Formats: sequence, structure tokens, C-alpha cells
Amino acid sequence: MSKIKVGVVGYGTIGKRVADAIRLQDDMELVGITANTYNYKIKAANKKGIKIFPMRGLSDKDHLNHGIDSVHGHAEDLIEQSDIIVDCTPKKTGYKKWYEKRGVKAIFQGGEKADMGTSFVSQCNYADAWGADYIRVVSCNTTGLCRTLKAVDSTYGVKQAHATLIRRAADPWDIYHGPVNALVPHLVVPSHHGPDVKTILPNMELFTTSVSVPTTLMHIHSISVDLEMPTVNIEGVVDLFRSTTRVRMVYNSDGIRSTAEILEYAKDLGRERGDMPEVCVWKETIGLKNDKLFYLQAIHQESDVVPENIDAIRAACKMCSGAESIRKTNLSLGI
Amino acid sequence: MSKIKVGVVGYGTIGKRVADAIRLQDDMELVGITANTYNYKIKAANKKGIKIFPMRGLSDKDHLNHGIDSVHGHAEDLIEQSDIIVDCTPKKTGYKKWYEKRGVKAIFQGGEKADMGTSFVSQCNYADAWGADYIRVVSCNTTGLCRTLKAVDSTYGVKQAHATLIRRAADPWDIYHGPVNALVPHLVVPSHHGPDVKTILPNMELFTTSVSVPTTLMHIHSISVDLEMPTVNIEGVVDLFRSTTRVRMVYNSDGIRSTAEILEYAKDLGRERGDMPEVCVWKETIGLKNDKLFYLQAIHQESDVVPENIDAIRAACKMCSGAESIRKTNLSLGI
Repeated sequence: MSKIKVGVVGYGTIGKRVADAIRLQDDMELVGITANTYNYKIKAANKKGIKIFPMRGLSDKDHLNHGIDSVHGHAEDLIEQSDIIVDCTPKKTGYKKWYEKRGVKAIFQGGEKADMGTSFVSQCNYADAWGADYIRVVSCNTTGLCRTLKAVDSTYGVKQAHATLIRRAADPWDIYHGPVNALVPHLVVPSHHGPDVKTILPNMELFTTSVSVPTTLMHIHSISVDLEMPTVNIEGVVDLFRSTTRVRMVYNSDGIRSTAEILEYAKDLGRERGDMPEVCVWKETIGLKNDKLFYLQAIHQESDVVPENIDAIRAACKMCSGAESIRKTNLSLGI
Repeated sequence: MSKIKVGVVGYGTIGKRVADAIRLQDDMELVGITANTYNYKIKAANKKGIKIFPMRGLSDKDHLNHGIDSVHGHAEDLIEQSDIIVDCTPKKTGYKKWYEKRGVKAIFQGGEKADMGTSFVSQCNYADAWGADYIRVVSCNTTGLCRTLKAVDSTYGVKQAHATLIRRAADPWDIYHGPVNALVPHLVVPSHHGPDVKTILPNMELFTTSVSVPTTLMHIHSISVDLEMPTVNIEGVVDLFRSTTRVRMVYNSDGIRSTAEILEYAKDLGRERGDMPEVCVWKETIGLKNDKLFYLQAIHQESDVVPENIDAIRAACKMCSGAESIRKTNLSLGI
């Protein structure tokens, strides 16, 4: 089987992870990545042997000043050499017109508007994206909400749910965003996350409230669900989450008391970049009262959409079934 | 009318505020405070002319080394000279036996067990504490939850509620507690806050989930309520909170986007120590969907129980009605 040729446009938090993940797939070939500046990320990519296609704004030969031996034409060349592009540019900058002009399929990220492509979470709606020209992998938070709420809905039925998103202020590398020392409510309700979940799970009645907090280490969601078929069996809920792909139960009894320790654990597991793409649900935070289910889950904002991007490539290019793609992606990433 | 003589045992975050508030009441006299070390707080109290009663562990004359001219016997003398004590010692250290032995009434704080005295939130159950020997002013979080949930229950009826507590890691002065950079879920559900609310509102079906976050500036509660009598009128909810004592509506449209700006506003209002004893609800975070109400409220952990302590003194000593006490306390504190 010939490999699908994939280009990555935008090489930041998500782009660099997606590029690495593509290189781990036996049915994909990473054509290269774009660069709009020669920073440490591009230098590291160059050292890995990843081909670099500078944006037109970069001056000729400047790459030599950054220790990068060679570049490969321009971003347009990358697009023309690829069967599909994963666009990981900053939110609201997806280069859709470039891809349309050249008849190349593309995967966008959750920062783009919903009409950019078929919204996508592998385990929820892989089939919807089968053969699609444009797919939008939804945001880290929406992805995490969909994974567990879909599971709860399938087993117990969700009448309505409320999620409070306790959001990390910035990514670890990001020194420009706050708050340093305050709690910042998102002053529109519902926050966009609830409606965004409906692009994946159209019947999910979810209201979301969001607060930014001074940390860089993961988001936490506090979720309450009105169940259609109530249960008093917490172990049943635990078993449900344990058997749901890309959901990981974590245990206070193992010493995982915080998001810091989840990421320490990911490092101890030998994960690339210390990533934790699974949604982590603390067993001890699962509660049942009357007809409601409560739980806390943690979302690693930098990595949880990476496996979705890989699966989205396979869906767009009709490479294999959703179940098979999830199996292959999980295996390659050690999930 | 002769003034009620009040002593304050324990002079930390709460004790120093309660002592100042007592001095503002026309029907109370602050006998003095205890000291178990001569730190900056005690020095400041001395400068204000507050009488200091050292604990027995302190060595004689050591106060002179700290610029404190005179002390007044020992803690036991303070108790004997007082009609009532407000015990603001650290959690689980309330000196109840001392007060019982001397037949002195006492007010305890929310860190004590529920059986230490009648649990108390002025606007919810003042009458329950009428003439009580021992009252327990519940914690800042429980107080805040009771204030708004009681109002919602009275107007719309609460079937069941869920509150996610996003808790400040430590008080501003407290350099010993973390987290510095992580989110720490409270790994028992429900957290103690839900059951604690029942000590005030016995029929309130509240489940609480809690996460500590790296800030010192206030807690935020994300609350969802299943209403008995649903409404679609957000302005009605706004009016309800606006007309509820010790609840303040805050507005993003005024530039109050975060807890930092709430406290900046308190300083701009000229509040003593920059305190905000009112529960602050952001107007823009009030949401209604199907039969549910959603809102975010911020709690100033250092000050919201201060007015409750003052009212608890009046309830214990049968000084006036709850409505009258709340009126007097609010007026004295500029609420």
C-alpha cells in the first residue's frame, strides 16, 4: 500500500506533535512542515530530518544563520507535494483558500469556525468525516467533553449536563498570557464549548461555564449529568470509563493528586514530550446523587487532539475504519 | 444600653477583622485579643490601642522587645472579663473547654466540627441561634453558597444543585501552601461543603466538587440549580440577587473581569483592608437553560464571614432581631 503524503502547515504546540505522530504511522509519510520564522522548534525539526518549507516572508538563505542546512522551496510547494495538509496555524488563520486552489484535502484545528469542515472526534463521529475534503478537529476541551459524555450517554442516557471548565491560563512555553494571580470567569454563558460539543453530538444538552486560572498544567472539567437511566453503582461508571478508549482512570490512591502528578506520570511512562492525550478521570471524584452523576476530568491541552488529527487523515483519505484507525493510532502513541 | 463585652481569641486572618468590626459596633465593646506570639499583627493591634492578653506560653516582658508597652494578664483573664468570646483559632483548635469552665458564651469558626455549636449564616437562620451558648459561623464557602442558594430557593425553589468550588490555594500572606503551578482536585466527593450547607439549610440538596488553583485572590463557585419553578427571565434572577443582602452583582461591562478586579474595586471603595464581604455574582454569567439556572460567584475568603460573626454575637446575646442586626452590621462595614 502506498503511503498517504501529509504536510503540516503551522508548527507550534499542535503542529509539532502532529508531525511527530505522522512519522510514527506505517500508512503515512510526512512530506514536511512550514516555517514562518527559524525558531528553536524549527531547529529541532531540522535535526530530526523533517523537511522545512519556509513561508514566502522569510528571506533567502536566512536558514543558514540558524544552522538549518537546507530548505525545500516554499509552503506552496509543500501543499502541492501533499495528498492532505494538517493545518495547525493559530486560530482563525487556517489557509483554506490555498488548499481549495490546489485541490488538496485539509484538516483544521478547533480554533477555526465550525463551517471550516466536518467537526471531528474519532470515537464519536468518524463516519461523518469519511472522504471529507475538509475536517475540523475540535478543541482540546470539546474533544475531552465528547469522549466521556458520549460514553455516559451510550450507557446511561444524558438528559442534560453542566460542565465547569477550569482552564489553564497559558501553555507552558507561553510567557505572554495571564492571569498571574487571579481567577478570570469567561463572561459569556454558555461558553462556546457547549455549543461546540453539539457539532459532534447533536443531541447533547450541555451548558458550559468557564474560568481561567493561573497554571499551565492541563484543564480540569467538573461535570454534572442528569441521567436518563440513573444508577447507584459507582463501580459501573468506573468500568465504563476504563473501557472507553482515550479515557484514563487516575487514582488518588496511586498518589495522583493533581494535574502536576498526571504529567509527572506521563513522563514516567516515557511519553514523547511528557504528553497525556487521554482524558484523565479521577476515580475518587465520581459521585452519584439522586439521578445525577458527577466527575472531574483533566485535559492535556497540548496533546489530546493529536490522535484525532491522525484519525482525521485516515477518515478524509478513506484509509480504514474508525475502529481500525483508533487502534493503529493508539498503538503508535502508546495509549 | 450597656455594651456587650467581647473578647477575641486567636488573632489571624479572621480574628483581626472581627476585632476591627467589633470596634465599629455601637452595642459592643472589644475587651481585647489574645497573642501567642508577638508578630506584626499584634504590633499593629497594639498601635490601634487594642488590649493584648498573651497566652501562657509567652515569656514575661518579651512584649517590650517588640515595642508593645503593656499586656493585660493572660488569655484566661480576657475570657473572664468578657460576656462572649469570638474564637478565631486555627481549625480544630477551638478552646471550648475554657469557655465552658468559665460559663462564657462563644462563637466558633467554620473550621470546627458542626457539633461545636449552632451553625450560623445570618440571613438564613439567625433565629436558630437566638440565645445559644455556642455558635459556629460556617466557612466562607458555605456562607457564600447559603446566601445565594437560599435566595434562589425562596423564589424559584431548588430541586437539587451542584457547585464546583474553584478554590484559592492560600491566603495572600500565606507563603507555605501550594500549588504553585497545578490544579488539585479535592479527592473526596461530595466535598464537605455540600453537607455543611445542610447544617444551615437542612432541605438543600447540594452536591459539591472542589479544585484548588494557584491564586490567593478569592474563590469562585460555578453553580447549577435544577429549579422547581423554572424561569426564562434572567433579569428576574438579577433583581433577586440585587435585592439579597450581602450579595453584590458585578458587571463585566464595568470592567470587572476577574477576582483581581473585584478586590481592586473593594480598595477603590475604601474598604478596610480592601475587603469584599459580599458574595459577588457576575451578571454576565447568569444562564438559564431548560429548567436550570447557572451562575458564577466569587467569595472573599478573608472577609465574608466577618459580618456573620458580628450578627452571631447579637443572636447569642439576644441583643436584637436578625433583620436589625444585619442592618446595623452592614451599615458599620459599608456593605
